[in-house]
Amino acid sequence: MELILTEKHTDGYSVNWKIKETLHVEQTKYQHLAIVETYEFGRALVLDGIIQTTVKDEYMYHEMIALPALMTHPNPQKVMVIGGGDGGTIREVLKHPAVEQADLIEIDERVILACQKYLPEISCALTDSRVRIFVEDGIEYVQRHKDKYDVILIDSSDPIGPATNLFHESFYKNVYEALKIDGIMVCQSESPLFNRELLGNVHKSVKNLFPITRTYLATVPTYISGFWSFTMGSKQYDPLNAEIPLDVVNRLKTKYYNADIHKGAFVLPEYVAELFR
Amino acid sequence: MELILTEKHTDGYSVNWKIKETLHVEQTKYQHLAIVETYEFGRALVLDGIIQTTVKDEYMYHEMIALPALMTHPNPQKVMVIGGGDGGTIREVLKHPAVEQADLIEIDERVILACQKYLPEISCALTDSRVRIFVEDGIEYVQRHKDKYDVILIDSSDPIGPATNLFHESFYKNVYEALKIDGIMVCQSESPLFNRELLGNVHKSVKNLFPITRTYLATVPTYISGFWSFTMGSKQYDPLNAEIPLDVVNRLKTKYYNADIHKGAFVLPEYVAELFR
Repeated sequence: MELILTEKHTDGYSVNWKIKETLHVEQTKYQHLAIVETYEFGRALVLDGIIQTTVKDEYMYHEMIALPALMTHPNPQKVMVIGGGDGGTIREVLKHPAVEQADLIEIDERVILACQKYLPEISCALTDSRVRIFVEDGIEYVQRHKDKYDVILIDSSDPIGPATNLFHESFYKNVYEALKIDGIMVCQSESPLFNRELLGNVHKSVKNLFPITRTYLATVPTYISGFWSFTMGSKQYDPLNAEIPLDVVNRLKTKYYNADIHKGAFVLPEYVAELFR
Repeated sequence: MELILTEKHTDGYSVNWKIKETLHVEQTKYQHLAIVETYEFGRALVLDGIIQTTVKDEYMYHEMIALPALMTHPNPQKVMVIGGGDGGTIREVLKHPAVEQADLIEIDERVILACQKYLPEISCALTDSRVRIFVEDGIEYVQRHKDKYDVILIDSSDPIGPATNLFHESFYKNVYEALKIDGIMVCQSESPLFNRELLGNVHKSVKNLFPITRTYLATVPTYISGFWSFTMGSKQYDPLNAEIPLDVVNRLKTKYYNADIHKGAFVLPEYVAELFR
């Protein structure tokens, strides 16, 4: 028997992953959840039929959603991660020596539990004493907290299903208010090629709120088009002016992020740059 | 009837393109050649079952194989393109105002003819008076020319079939000798994720010959992993020190390349940078 997981990115374009083993399948309160072992990219978390992260290339996404903001902020002590129940973003956050508290706000506890059981390389940091886990809707959690966080990372799934409202300006406004006076937020803002309108809207919404707004890019083969965007809103610190201390970067033991990438990721191909003019 | 073109990138990972129409199919002397109309990315050139270029994203590849070298060289008058029978690289070469002669060396005339008939957006520049077309093995052509070209671009297909020998150091040595004393070569050097060993070998071979060797990257969704590498060998000019005249760049009417990308494309994620240490 040959098992194939087909992800239909669009009507005319789909990707087939040959599956060695299906480790876990369930319908949670919020979504269809599976953990599979792919031949090509190792174990993977699948939500509503879409691969969210794989053992082989998860570091590209997780390093790049977390480290540019953490290395831009001079002293990121309190960090919030919204979504990201797999724990990969928290793992990267905790690499920064200044971090004292990392709060994970994940709506679906079943994602956390499945990743803790089947994806230990990704979820390993969730048991760290600096981590607090809140199983709750990020939108509601953020509304109750004002002026408390140095960095907030919005590690959502695609804007369908439970994550839809995490792409709205009203949500970003609450994130703005949950940040301290010099706070920084980053959200994943989808493919610059396949989700151009959404990326343009996210950038515009963030720009309406934050004095410094910068979209940056990373390559993640697992995601459609292999190319992913992140949008940063910052109250005071510009990532392009950040002095990146090499001794700190070297201790992070990264596989994607480095001091050059910190600047290079913000360089946009013309077809992306024109979205924001 | 639903037509699907499946590209098997590896045993465990493949991509399905839904096909609206098959415009042309033939077995040439060198390879299986087809032109198809995809739903997602428009018309595409397919060689031996692998999509080489599509109307939707071809500019990313063609601008990035051609323009970094042309904008690094202060006066690129004579340019050679090896392979690239679709004409896209020649089109980008001719955008540079200094270019007086652009020679295309393509082994398979059928590729040129099919692209001229079915992909006019890509092949349009092949009728320009500055272009000379030589239907010939690039390896033999290069051997007969010494000290003649300012820039040589190696726009090969994958290192299987007719292009295999275009990835060997002995070939790069002949390219070196075909270049003038301040010449620059660029070759496409495959996916930094799926073809790591090959990329490492290409970089090493070029470095054995050229005083300045730089690998740079671009995102091209059509190619496996969505992420592609190019390796530049330069006798005198370092692309990182090039002064990019903005008035010239603006006249190029690019959709991917710009003055920031000229530098940003050379910034390597850690997992690529480590290949060359």
